[in-house]
Amino acid sequence: MHFKKLALIGCGLIGGSFALALKRAQAIERVSGFSASLSSREKALSLHVIDESANSIQEAVQGADLVLVAVPVNAIEACLSNIRESLSDEALVMDVGSTKHQITLAAQRALKERLHCFVPAHPIAGKERHGVAHAEATLFDHHKTILTPTPQSDAHLVALAKQVWQTIGSTVSIMSPEEHDQALAAISHLPHLIAFAAVNAIAQQDQRDLFLSLAGPGFRDFSRIAASAPSVWVDIFLSNPNEVLDQLSMFKKAIANFEQALMRKDPQIIENLIESASTVRKDWTPTGSKK
Amino acid sequence: MHFKKLALIGCGLIGGSFALALKRAQAIERVSGFSASLSSREKALSLHVIDESANSIQEAVQGADLVLVAVPVNAIEACLSNIRESLSDEALVMDVGSTKHQITLAAQRALKERLHCFVPAHPIAGKERHGVAHAEATLFDHHKTILTPTPQSDAHLVALAKQVWQTIGSTVSIMSPEEHDQALAAISHLPHLIAFAAVNAIAQQDQRDLFLSLAGPGFRDFSRIAASAPSVWVDIFLSNPNEVLDQLSMFKKAIANFEQALMRKDPQIIENLIESASTVRKDWTPTGSKK
Repeated sequence: MHFKKLALIGCGLIGGSFALALKRAQAIERVSGFSASLSSREKALSLHVIDESANSIQEAVQGADLVLVAVPVNAIEACLSNIRESLSDEALVMDVGSTKHQITLAAQRALKERLHCFVPAHPIAGKERHGVAHAEATLFDHHKTILTPTPQSDAHLVALAKQVWQTIGSTVSIMSPEEHDQALAAISHLPHLIAFAAVNAIAQQDQRDLFLSLAGPGFRDFSRIAASAPSVWVDIFLSNPNEVLDQLSMFKKAIANFEQALMRKDPQIIENLIESASTVRKDWTPTGSKK
Repeated sequence: MHFKKLALIGCGLIGGSFALALKRAQAIERVSGFSASLSSREKALSLHVIDESANSIQEAVQGADLVLVAVPVNAIEACLSNIRESLSDEALVMDVGSTKHQITLAAQRALKERLHCFVPAHPIAGKERHGVAHAEATLFDHHKTILTPTPQSDAHLVALAKQVWQTIGSTVSIMSPEEHDQALAAISHLPHLIAFAAVNAIAQQDQRDLFLSLAGPGFRDFSRIAASAPSVWVDIFLSNPNEVLDQLSMFKKAIANFEQALMRKDPQIIENLIESASTVRKDWTPTGSKK
């Protein structure tokens, strides 16, 4: 597997890490980058994440056999529309958005007769720190990437997409956009919502500074995802609201079970509730990383 | 500051780490350990956490100028009752319980005329792995310890207690038991309850194995505290139920704000809610450890 030219649309943490990872794997000849922000493009160029800074999105994709659309979820449709007519015949086009159902619908509208070249992708990797300055060639190592091919996706491009992500260290799963969005609502979107709400609940109290000054490593890890970027997460929540609300309703029931047991001061029920969570969490091994 | 004999009642993670930390600081001549479980005592002896294994709690405290009661919250009262008549005149007695109001009441009942020697302590340190085998001399380094002296606590023993925890690496705060319990409900007890409930909400779903197989580092950190020991946490919740319920009610309001904004698909309100949490979390620096 070897590509002549990667068109990187969006030179941020994920896009930049993708380019660096392909370079590390010696799977790419050159990277042409475009980014709405000129300063991101220049930064990416100075960090050798991209080899040339394109002046337009069309210029970037010209002659590219690999296109990564690594822009915020709500910018993907416009981006795909803009590149449709400039795409090479053989190009594989992927996004890296955190939700998949709405993106698939957007791609159908935007790519039209070129939809077959598009393989929606979601690498489950990231950091609380955004921007190309934090990009790393190892970001996807030992992480999962989910592909959600459309019925129109070309089978050999799906196989190629799988190979790309494996080459840069990911384990690849293939599922439907709906399965993806439900799973991600459970293991990522709802946990973020909970962490944001938990920090807000503390922040509104008069003693917030005292409380936070006493918080230790448990709170540090529990609340780490609450530092995530607002613009990214507004997009994610709004592109997957129903699944997030479904998961939230199950979580509220789980909270209510605790609340009732605590009001009744029932040690047995409380112990059962903790025991089941503790067992599940202890038995779980996160993909390729420490417990 | 130098002690002749530490009586360690309860040879687990926290007690064992306390003994090791005092030894590292060369602040103690010998450690006599007692533990309800004979195997814990023997393990502590073989790991040189204690220098002698006492056959009774009374034997352990005999001649001790420092006594650490490092047993589960609901065992503290019986423990203090059992040692009262064997305590040396000059002994400083501390517990390490995670709640303080109920423990203070228990100490009043148990220690009676010896209450002046007792300085309730709570080192905010720990791991999900329990037992003396995981004890470390560095466990309290750069962590906070809260002291909640009673009105009867001898002032020079409070000063000495402060010195002890500082010597083994802690930063010490002094507050009332009520302030302590409220703060800990906010930054520790409720986050644990939330993490247990969040894992339970996932675990009850048919697709739990698929969901968990896709979960990444964000979920790993968010849910880490859900692996905590059930017996420890039943005790903590039941010794601080009202403060936990108060914090829970504020959290539920914070969740409801998100839910309403999500049902209305209101980007501005969602962004404000995330922005406030993200700013607070980014500005917070955990005591002596990485963000």
